[in-house]
Amino acid sequence: MFTTPAYPADTPQETRVAVEPLKELLVKMYVKMGMFKAEAEIAASRQVESDLRGIPSHGVRATPRYLKAMETGDIDPRGQTTTVVDTPAIAVLDGGRNIGHVVATKAMKLAISKAKEVGTGTVAVKNSLHYGASGVYALMAAAQGMIGYTTTSTGGATVAAYGSARPGTANNAFAWAAPTRTGKPFCLDMACAQSSWGKVDSWKLYGQPMPGDWALDAEGRPTTDPHAAKILLPAAGARGSALALVSAILAGPLVGGKMPLHKTRHPDHEDSEHFFYVIDVARFGFEERFYAELDSALEEIRNLPPAEGFQRTTIAGDLETERTARNLAEGVPLHASDLAALATCAAKWKLPVPWAAS
Amino acid sequence: MFTTPAYPADTPQETRVAVEPLKELLVKMYVKMGMFKAEAEIAASRQVESDLRGIPSHGVRATPRYLKAMETGDIDPRGQTTTVVDTPAIAVLDGGRNIGHVVATKAMKLAISKAKEVGTGTVAVKNSLHYGASGVYALMAAAQGMIGYTTTSTGGATVAAYGSARPGTANNAFAWAAPTRTGKPFCLDMACAQSSWGKVDSWKLYGQPMPGDWALDAEGRPTTDPHAAKILLPAAGARGSALALVSAILAGPLVGGKMPLHKTRHPDHEDSEHFFYVIDVARFGFEERFYAELDSALEEIRNLPPAEGFQRTTIAGDLETERTARNLAEGVPLHASDLAALATCAAKWKLPVPWAAS
Repeated sequence: MFTTPAYPADTPQETRVAVEPLKELLVKMYVKMGMFKAEAEIAASRQVESDLRGIPSHGVRATPRYLKAMETGDIDPRGQTTTVVDTPAIAVLDGGRNIGHVVATKAMKLAISKAKEVGTGTVAVKNSLHYGASGVYALMAAAQGMIGYTTTSTGGATVAAYGSARPGTANNAFAWAAPTRTGKPFCLDMACAQSSWGKVDSWKLYGQPMPGDWALDAEGRPTTDPHAAKILLPAAGARGSALALVSAILAGPLVGGKMPLHKTRHPDHEDSEHFFYVIDVARFGFEERFYAELDSALEEIRNLPPAEGFQRTTIAGDLETERTARNLAEGVPLHASDLAALATCAAKWKLPVPWAAS
Repeated sequence: MFTTPAYPADTPQETRVAVEPLKELLVKMYVKMGMFKAEAEIAASRQVESDLRGIPSHGVRATPRYLKAMETGDIDPRGQTTTVVDTPAIAVLDGGRNIGHVVATKAMKLAISKAKEVGTGTVAVKNSLHYGASGVYALMAAAQGMIGYTTTSTGGATVAAYGSARPGTANNAFAWAAPTRTGKPFCLDMACAQSSWGKVDSWKLYGQPMPGDWALDAEGRPTTDPHAAKILLPAAGARGSALALVSAILAGPLVGGKMPLHKTRHPDHEDSEHFFYVIDVARFGFEERFYAELDSALEEIRNLPPAEGFQRTTIAGDLETERTARNLAEGVPLHASDLAALATCAAKWKLPVPWAAS
């Protein structure tokens, strides 16, 4: 009845690692590469937040790739954020080719402060790199009583254009978050293809075949082999394809960047643009009714009887909120091969790792 | 490979009607009900624009329903738009319970003028009624060199909550449009279920069974009978369900309105809230590169080889742009039963209809 791509999970291949020591290890490695400590902490925090939410594809797994991009000079660990355009409602920031999490965090904070003043804030970012998981930025707005939206470019065209077996768009991600007073913010964090390359990577890692409607191989034929997958299929046909284009336009040409078809480098090394939009609920004049109405309706949806095959009905963001609570207490579950890759990086500087070697 | 719901089409059941006389008939009927002529022209224009684009579900077909809602007092044909909140970047308008097209057009124009000043404009509308097709408003922004977004509430919960066979959200619609210099603006106009009630109605009208993954019957079982369909299924599972909630939050609680679960009346009579967001491309500082990059990339996508079963690769909005050109020249194709319903309304005031009786 419902189709939604899931991550594979195989507990014996995972180890739970405590959050603070994990973050500290990332900070130390980024500082070794030349980042300022305060900015390294921003990047590490956004990554660990992704793992906490159960999105390992955009969590600390990416650090060895980011370190490599710093070595090749594609990420500038000392790159500074500069302001290109500024009005009461909008700003354009230049990320100085630092790791995307740094300028993205600044951009979302700036959008929040503009929204406090004039009701909304829109900040677009150019000259940045991969910023991780969209949801963690949208949730920064929700934590301030605001509705947050963000989208980002994610490299070249790897998703079939609607009506073609050839790639026309990237699998751009976007997120919407809305505040609640229940401790369970609404948070939709999605990409526009049937699945994501991060999830395809997860299936590779766990050595299992993927669902058959996710991807095409190099010849444009549907495949269940994650290693053969070369082109993702858009979700909901024309709609997923067009939603990916919306993200590509906002996080791309709007700030002078390229469309996915014109990007040729791996997403870890390719220019990335980001877009942030924040709506201050209070400034629209119905704050108390907003929370009363939204919180009661979401709770009623959670209480709907589950369909066959489901244990319960959930709201977007619920599972991630629950995982965050559990993972904060028990540590984030990381795959053995991700831990090995992080340990290899740490060994270069003789940094101890906060988990037992398996 | 791709799934996208289509309208049924059966030319012998349709008659092409010239646009201007059709619009005039609508204006006359709305004026008879008490609307100011200028506002009646706004409503009729937005409806005919929907028919021109090949979206009959939100076109003149709705006029007999709107007239009925004026008779029952749910639409106030003299309802005036008032301003509730106003800052340089945002406004909240009260639609005075007039037909939604009137306040929606004013709201989009206001958002455009704010975007010219500060880079973006956000206008939210409360106390309105059904506003027709989202796409025609988003395109007003694109016509001014701006990116436009709009969403609207569409009555009660009729789409299954993710994980339940019971309705949790409405089939809220939203649209994004972006300007181009090719005469073919990008325009994504979508709802969040596998299909829309308007399309289900079209299948009823044409007496054909629907695809099997669109809807559930009253007992929560999948059905292909448009008459038995009671609950729509969300597109792309959790994602369609959550996207519908985003729209419900922006066009609802943000301006003191209800969530779909708390709306109980037919969409023609139920309160409707709308939301508009406009981004002035020029104010972000890269206007020339924006058009050069976007136009060339979209053209390259159009030139990708079509997949099996497709004649060509198209961008969201292309088919609607082509239909508009054809329908402007040849008249909009309207179904015999829609024409009969309009003729019945017109006969009450002895107004002649601009088509031959069949």
